[in-house]
Amino acid sequence: MTIRQGRNGRREIMNGAQDGPAHWRERIRAGAHSGLTAGLAPGYVQANLAVLPRALAFDFLLFCQRNPKPCPLLEVVEAGKVEPRRLAPGADWRTDLPRYRLYEHGQLCLECTDVRELWREDDVAFFLGCSFTFEAALVQAGIEMRHLSCGSNVPMYITNLATEAAGQFHGPMVVSMRPIAYADVARAVQISARYPAVHGAPVHLGDPAALGIRDLAQPDFGDAVPIEKGETPVFWACGVTPQAVAMKAKPARMITHAPGHMFITDRRDEELATA
Amino acid sequence: MTIRQGRNGRREIMNGAQDGPAHWRERIRAGAHSGLTAGLAPGYVQANLAVLPRALAFDFLLFCQRNPKPCPLLEVVEAGKVEPRRLAPGADWRTDLPRYRLYEHGQLCLECTDVRELWREDDVAFFLGCSFTFEAALVQAGIEMRHLSCGSNVPMYITNLATEAAGQFHGPMVVSMRPIAYADVARAVQISARYPAVHGAPVHLGDPAALGIRDLAQPDFGDAVPIEKGETPVFWACGVTPQAVAMKAKPARMITHAPGHMFITDRRDEELATA
Repeated sequence: MTIRQGRNGRREIMNGAQDGPAHWRERIRAGAHSGLTAGLAPGYVQANLAVLPRALAFDFLLFCQRNPKPCPLLEVVEAGKVEPRRLAPGADWRTDLPRYRLYEHGQLCLECTDVRELWREDDVAFFLGCSFTFEAALVQAGIEMRHLSCGSNVPMYITNLATEAAGQFHGPMVVSMRPIAYADVARAVQISARYPAVHGAPVHLGDPAALGIRDLAQPDFGDAVPIEKGETPVFWACGVTPQAVAMKAKPARMITHAPGHMFITDRRDEELATA
Repeated sequence: MTIRQGRNGRREIMNGAQDGPAHWRERIRAGAHSGLTAGLAPGYVQANLAVLPRALAFDFLLFCQRNPKPCPLLEVVEAGKVEPRRLAPGADWRTDLPRYRLYEHGQLCLECTDVRELWREDDVAFFLGCSFTFEAALVQAGIEMRHLSCGSNVPMYITNLATEAAGQFHGPMVVSMRPIAYADVARAVQISARYPAVHGAPVHLGDPAALGIRDLAQPDFGDAVPIEKGETPVFWACGVTPQAVAMKAKPARMITHAPGHMFITDRRDEELATA
């Protein structure tokens, strides 16, 4: 597929939302799409990226193993390699995400659309599940995602739940919140539980104070959403956790996706479902 | 609880089978039990042990992450530590298994009941799920485990299914086989699928040749069992896989449990069930 540039270029790209993941990665690699990935290639898993030096890789891998709900590992690409061949054969993690961030000692240094220049031989790339998959399943089941209705980012909160530390990686769990009608809560638990590789079942519901959250109207990340009568706040472990934890460890160097600019994989959402 | 020694000492210990995991670990640590662990502390998870030097730990952890069915990781105890505090707070992996093996460059060097003398500061201990948990669930559901009826070891076969390599760890998957009545196969799948942390659902069934198994009567490990009319062989990923793979990599040094002499944890079987 070729992309015609021109006045209506942007519209054409958005019209191509239904195109498959390989098409999208191709466009992204060619520099023809550097925007958000939500809604692109529907039905396919999107992933968070965190790249760390080899010296920190064991501890970070162990951190993910110990905290599977906030850190659902989909794939690890070893040092010296750039192809996430389980998630997307032929892809290259240095070019196939629309936007990256480079952090040095925990400080954001650079945002860019290609990290081939930044790549080092000892970079280990971690791909982590994201909530798009279970949100799509909830929406298909007729359960409203309030932040999607509002056209905003999901609200996220730093909790008083500690993660299980590994080496220098430690810190609180971050959760995302979605208001759900009481009548739908049990079904929302069942549906999201089918996807343990993308955060799985909620970690808590109903009582923000029990998580140390003082005011739902003031999320730590993302945007607040209204909670209607007959609804309760439901909390899921959030993929911001591993990034927050990694940043806190202030590694000399860390590459991540820019928020919302995910890696579009060839894996179908249903491939991640347990039963 | 104290153990009276004497002529009927062994019987008394076996009568204590129903005792909890902490009692059993205490006896084992005290040298009062160095035998098999099958049937001890029923309802509690037992685990395989593999100890490798720090330099190989990232690759082995990644191998387990890539091959969760044969290598279901329950806990990793870092270098310098000896307490598997998630599986059994207060336990010490160097003393609390009834029998250990030391391998050097892939060769069995020593079998012993305590590895404190062998312990090194850079040992990383991996605890992996074992099939006892899902077998108990199948038996409780009225599904016969033929090898248990026969009083023998489960038959195990080296297959032509490759594991996903990581670093120097690679090799074929080993499976265990249990004959199941056709009428019970679907239920056996459902029940074992509830326990992904202990091998989960079968990897194959019905056609040994498709796995490269020539003769079910000649298992590579364990003992052959009869398959009756109306039954089909069902194959589960087997915890022998990681040991076989690790051995093949011929690490300078590796400590494991002796076959059948597992680590008895404080985790209940039901804690590992997904739904």
